[in-house]
Order: sequence, then structure tokens, then C-alpha cells
Amino acid sequence: MLSASFIHALGNAAKCICLEPATLETYAGDKWFARALPDAVALPGSEEEVAAILRAAHDHGIPVTPRGAGVGYVGGCVPVHGGLVLSTERMNRILEVNPADGVAVVEPGVITADLQEACSEVGWFYPPDPASRKESSIGGNIATNAGGPRCLKYGVTRSYVLGLRVVLADGRILTAGSRTHKNKQGFDLVGLFCGSEGTLGIITQATLRIIPAPRARMALHASFPSFDLAAAAVQRVLQAGHLPCALEIADAFTLSAARKHLKTDVLPADAQGHLIVEIDGRRDALKSELDEISSLLRESSGASSVYPAYTEAEVEGIWELRRGFSESLKATGLTKLNEDIVVPRSQLVNFVNFCAALREESGIPIACFGHAGDGNIHTNIMVPRDAGGKERRDEAEALLPRIFDFVLACGGVITGEHGIGLAKAPWFSQAVGPSSLSVHSSLKAALDPSRILNPGKIVN
Amino acid sequence: MLSASFIHALGNAAKCICLEPATLETYAGDKWFARALPDAVALPGSEEEVAAILRAAHDHGIPVTPRGAGVGYVGGCVPVHGGLVLSTERMNRILEVNPADGVAVVEPGVITADLQEACSEVGWFYPPDPASRKESSIGGNIATNAGGPRCLKYGVTRSYVLGLRVVLADGRILTAGSRTHKNKQGFDLVGLFCGSEGTLGIITQATLRIIPAPRARMALHASFPSFDLAAAAVQRVLQAGHLPCALEIADAFTLSAARKHLKTDVLPADAQGHLIVEIDGRRDALKSELDEISSLLRESSGASSVYPAYTEAEVEGIWELRRGFSESLKATGLTKLNEDIVVPRSQLVNFVNFCAALREESGIPIACFGHAGDGNIHTNIMVPRDAGGKERRDEAEALLPRIFDFVLACGGVITGEHGIGLAKAPWFSQAVGPSSLSVHSSLKAALDPSRILNPGKIVN
Repeated sequence: MLSASFIHALGNAAKCICLEPATLETYAGDKWFARALPDAVALPGSEEEVAAILRAAHDHGIPVTPRGAGVGYVGGCVPVHGGLVLSTERMNRILEVNPADGVAVVEPGVITADLQEACSEVGWFYPPDPASRKESSIGGNIATNAGGPRCLKYGVTRSYVLGLRVVLADGRILTAGSRTHKNKQGFDLVGLFCGSEGTLGIITQATLRIIPAPRARMALHASFPSFDLAAAAVQRVLQAGHLPCALEIADAFTLSAARKHLKTDVLPADAQGHLIVEIDGRRDALKSELDEISSLLRESSGASSVYPAYTEAEVEGIWELRRGFSESLKATGLTKLNEDIVVPRSQLVNFVNFCAALREESGIPIACFGHAGDGNIHTNIMVPRDAGGKERRDEAEALLPRIFDFVLACGGVITGEHGIGLAKAPWFSQAVGPSSLSVHSSLKAALDPSRILNPGKIVN
Repeated sequence: MLSASFIHALGNAAKCICLEPATLETYAGDKWFARALPDAVALPGSEEEVAAILRAAHDHGIPVTPRGAGVGYVGGCVPVHGGLVLSTERMNRILEVNPADGVAVVEPGVITADLQEACSEVGWFYPPDPASRKESSIGGNIATNAGGPRCLKYGVTRSYVLGLRVVLADGRILTAGSRTHKNKQGFDLVGLFCGSEGTLGIITQATLRIIPAPRARMALHASFPSFDLAAAAVQRVLQAGHLPCALEIADAFTLSAARKHLKTDVLPADAQGHLIVEIDGRRDALKSELDEISSLLRESSGASSVYPAYTEAEVEGIWELRRGFSESLKATGLTKLNEDIVVPRSQLVNFVNFCAALREESGIPIACFGHAGDGNIHTNIMVPRDAGGKERRDEAEALLPRIFDFVLACGGVITGEHGIGLAKAPWFSQAVGPSSLSVHSSLKAALDPSRILNPGKIVN
């Protein structure tokens, strides 16, 4: 319950506050299963309103859980301590797309795909491409430092954030970074807010780096008689001097689900591993490079089939197939726990073999597919059901510590894209170790001493 | 003077401490003019020794000024508060170059060019290329988040740091980041230490991202009858969809010095602006792209001459010319104050015109050249001499506030590569503003509450 004195302290910003039960219900969770009702939802339309809300919340000790588009996978915007959910969805203007400076300036609620479209219209390019790009917002992408297949060549969201305006926990407004492509003025405050999951401040404006759009892209997909051969082919492609924008792998379990669901004939019945390679650049160079990669896969990497895609429509067809992998797993009717683990690239085979053994032992399906080029393998544990159709979620979750132990032991990390949120919170301390944990606490105390921002996330 | 109790507290690490006056003299400064004698120089050979030194320094309140190769331009490693200079030069092993994981693991004292050579030997590539790369060290590059011409396409040092081991102010050892190419485990601690100029911790190991080496590079250089045309050509090249690795510009003053000193016939007598464009990638694609850029410059951008360079030797020749620009300015016999300012790319012409007007007004030569693609223009104020040959440094320095005011007013920053150090300290507060300043202080207090690390730098 919010006090009258808090509402009073909001001043004009009180008009952004919703208390309707249906609204509270809508803002209780994201795509993860956890939910918690906030006391109110704030829908500010300006930085001024965000600042007024935080000033009042700070003075009254009200928790504020920032929220982008609410499509995260780890419960990052679940208001576990009640208080306010502050959604930036109404701040959704593209303020500027400026090729002369190589920047776009946006409010946090802009949907990522809309920005990409606006850049594309003038021949420019905003590379980060999380799978959620049609529904996730730039603010959320920055707060989670979103990735995507193209990160291999182009880097994650952080690489494209030049400047931020941030409302701090006490309502002060911070300008971090700038409009320039280089900036060595003090600490990397932009980086500190990128990926901080709303625990250090609320982003109200971002100046993003955009680059000239590559003229064309081409792609291929290839099937292999074993996952090991597909993983070895990833190394061969890179070792031969190619830097694809995307290098995606899928394991036997995923392929088997895809064959059942998609009824496609492009995945041979004996395929146990599968690669997608996308390259971009100048059209005259792409065909020869694609043919070179095709030969490499076919002739010296053991691929059983290679389908090149020279036209934009054919390339889209390959990504349609890739999206089909996800849908095929969903079509099994089972809930999947999607763990975005990352291993050092050389550990891909060991990791997938480990998952296969765990599947054998537990009887619980585990499907691995994802961004092989940077070792970011989405590991999907399929929650089994009992005879009555009830989910046996505990059994699936019991596998997580074993997977995370393996990943951390081989130098990997438990999240490469989704963040810590609630889902990974139990393992955060183990993952980063005591010194890092203590540094996290010090930084949180420095920027949000009253701990009102997204309490219960990252730092307890 | 160091106390006996401090020396005792160092234990075995006491053997790394030098007290010889000649050594103290050697470690009193960098390439900037300021100097201050430390009480001692520490030359640790291991992380353990760095930790022992910091523990003892922390307990005894001894200032510690970290130092890489000592080739910075802003006095960043000048021990203005005395105490210890801690140089990481002895920790200079390349521990690993591992293409299978796409990483190199190095100690901080490794010279950047040596790492690049080691990567190149196995066909891989570490892109950051500060001009000092043959003498600067990776630790220093990370502490200053070093740039270079290739940043336009490849990004600054930060983009290549995956993991760090850092000794904190109290001697605790922090592991930040990881060996993986993506990592969303909590705050971006790696980023926080990159560019922090030794004020938050001492880097003892870095895991760096390496990428497949581009197969070839080609370049061109072009002269223009005006600087404005050269700057407009920068926009045209990018607008046409090219993303060169480097796009370097030089102004009339620089060209005039170069013509005098280099006695080259490739710079026309009437050239008032000059561009270098370097592209890299697959050889079959490069020639057509270079020819396209040549035509663009010659036919629709007003270039008076264009010299393409198709072979590695010819490309090296162009960079030799570029290095000649710097030497030509040095050859004037005047000290140059090299200010690495950055403006939004569209402001290049305004900025260079402003400098030309300031030159007219003051009679003090100002030469502008540098990384036009990212707006990072090295602005060299040539310190005049009086009749007796004595430097009139005050007169040159009096121009700095006017230049910085202009730069900040047009959305630029006062340093893009060199950092704040001592040289930019007087303008730091104005450059970042009060909220950022206060956040800097909070972060410093969180990580170095006794303020022993590089006191007097960034945060006072």
C-alpha cells in the first residue's frame, strides 16, 4: 500500500500512477514463471516524471522495479519487494537518426526492431539483434546488455551505447558518456549501467552508435552426422579466416524435434548436428566467400549436406528454419527452462556431451542450440510431466546445479544474454566468487544506498 | 621516505623495491612534461607481489601510482603524491594465444605490438592499434582504454577485454569477466577498470578477445583543395556504405609542415585537406571496393589527387606518410601540446575552422589531424618561443580553455584516447558535469576508500 504522503510527494507525477488490479496483474512478471504484484505501476512519459517518482520513492523508502517491455527470461522485472513497477514503455520516441554523426538518440521504450527499421530506411545499421527484437525495448536491451546471433561479428548492445541519461536512485539525473564515438573522460559509467538490470539507475535516454549498413548478406546451413563434426566445423570456419556475423549450432535432440514438427526435407534423417553460417558485406565478395565456406564444410569438415542461400529470401528461409527449432521444442508441449550458458568455444563438444549424458541419466530431455561462434549455447531443459499431466518442474530444476557446476568448472558463465534476475540469483555468488560479490555490494551501496532500485536482484 | 615498518610489512615483496635515485628519476614521469619523484619504485614480478605491496601500502597509507610502459601523454603515471610507483613491466609474459577459444591471456607488461605479432603468427588478430603500440603495454592500454586509427571499424581496447585479474586497493584479488565471449554475470566490472587510469585497482592479468585476421588490406590517400571537401568526403565514404578500418584526415597546416619536412611529391602544393582510407577483408573484394572509393573521391568529392595502394608495401608507404605528419610537426622544433579531442563527426569542419581562426588571432600554430571517421582529431598547439628561444608555454596553454569550451559546447569530449591524467584534470569537472563527478567520487570511495591508488588523478 502506498501512503498518502508518498502520493502527495509525487506532485504532478502522481498522474502516471496506476492502481487498477488488472494493471498490477499485467506488470507482475515477465516471460519467466515468477510473479509478484506491485503496489502500483508507474508509467512516466518523461525523464522529469521518472526523476520525480524516484525522488519521492527515495524519500519514502519505496522499492522501484524498473521494467522495459517485460519480455525478459529471468524474472528481472518481477517486483519481489512490492512497491512500484516503473515501466518506460510510454517513453518511446526515436529522437534522432543521424548518419552524419553516426548516432541514433532514443527514449528507452523504443522497440529495438523499430529503431533498426528507422536506421535501415536511411541505409544505416544498428546491429544488436536479440531474438526478442520485435517486442523488446532499447532500455531493456541496455539494462540486460542484450546479445543475439550477430554478436559474433558485431558485439553486444554495450558496443553500441555511446551515451546515457540515467535517473539515479535519489532522483538526480546523470549524463554518462556522450555523442562521440570515443570518450576517455573518466570512468566507463555507460558500461556500468549497461547490464545492471535496473539496480543502479533508470535509463531515460540513449545515444547509440550506428554504422553504415552492410550491402548484402548470404548464408548457408549444413547438416552433420555428429555434433562433434559440427562443432569442429565452427573452429575450421574461423580458423580459415572467416568472421561470420552468425554461426549457429543445433544438437541432435533439437534436430529430431524440428524434423517432427517442421516436416521439412532439408534436415537429413541422420543429422546429429547442424550449422547456420551468415556472412555480410559487399555482394561481389560474398558469393566467393560463401562458396569457399561451403567447400570447407562439404569437403573437409564432414558435412552431409550444405544448402547455400544467395538471395535475401533464401537467407530469410534459413532464419525461418532456425526459429522453427525453438517452435519445435515448444511444440513438444513441454515447458522449457532456457538457460543461456556460455562456455569457452573449445568446450562446446564437452558441454553438449555432458548434457547428452545427463539426459540419459535423468530421462529428462535437454536440447542445446544457439550461438556456437561465441560459445553461447542455449540449453533447454524440457520439464517432464507426470501421468496426470502435472509438471515435474522440481526434477528439471534439480539438473540446473549440475549443469552450472560443469559450466563454471570449464571456465564458462551461467548467463550470456538474459542476465541474473531471479532465475540465476541462487548461483550468482558461486559464479562470480567472493571478491566480485563484495565489489558488487560496494558499487550498489555507492549508487543506491537505500537499496530501492530493483531490490532482490543481483545484489542482496 | 618509506618507514621501516612498511618495508617490514612487505615481507618477501620488499625485494621488488628500488630506492636508487637514478631509478626514481626514471619513473618520475611519462611523455608529458610533469614530473614528480616517488619515494620508491616497485617492480613486482607476480600478482602475489602486487597484492603484498598493496596490502602493506593500504595498511600504511602509502600512495601507489601504477605505471604501464610510461609512454602516456597526460602525466597519468606521475606520482604527484609521492609514495610508490608500481610498474608492471616485469610481468610481461604472453601466457596463451588460443584461437580455439578466440582468446589471448597476457600479463599487463606485454608490449602491445608483441601480442599482435604472436596473434599474427597463428593467423589471428588483436585489433587495437594505438600509435604507441611498439612501446606501450597491454596493462597501460587497458588502464587508458587505448584507441588508434582502426577503432573506427574495430572499436577501442575495451571491446577486446573479456576478463581481468585485478589487485584491489586493499590487496584483495578480484576476478572480473571471464574467458567467454559473452558474460552477463552481474555488473560490467571489466569495463569499470578499463580506462580507470589506475585509480581503482592494478591489473595483473588480462584475457583478451582475438578474431580471425582479415586476409588483406588496401588503402588510398587523397588530397583536396580545401579541408571542408576532405571532411565532406569522410561523410560520403560512410554514407556510401563503406566501413573502413581507418579514415584519417589532415589539415592545411599539417600538410604544409609535411611538404617542407618530407620533401614528398605526393602532396600537391595546393592541398588544404588530406584523407587516408584503409579497408580490410578478402582480397577479391578489396580491389573493387578501393576502386569504388577512389572514384567517389575523385569524381564526386572534389579530390585533386588520389593514390590507391593495392599491395601491403604500398599500404605501409601510406602509413609511413601519416607518421611523417607527426614527425614534420616535431621537426618544426616546437613542442606540441597534443590534445586528443573528439567532436561529433558532423562538427569536424566547424572545429577545424575554429582552430584556424584561433591560429589567426593568436599567431600560435595549431595543427589538426587524426581519426576523422570517429571525430577524434588530434589538435596540436605548437608552443611558440621568444626571441631568446625560451618556450612561451603559457601562451599556448591559454588557448586550451577556449578549445575545450568549443569542443564541449558542440557535444564533444576533451579526451578520446589519452585520458585525464594531470593534463586534463583542470577541465574534468566541467567536461563531465556535477552528477557524473559525484558518481565518480562515490565509485572511488567504494573501491579505494583510503585513496591510495593513483591519488590526484580523475577523482580528487
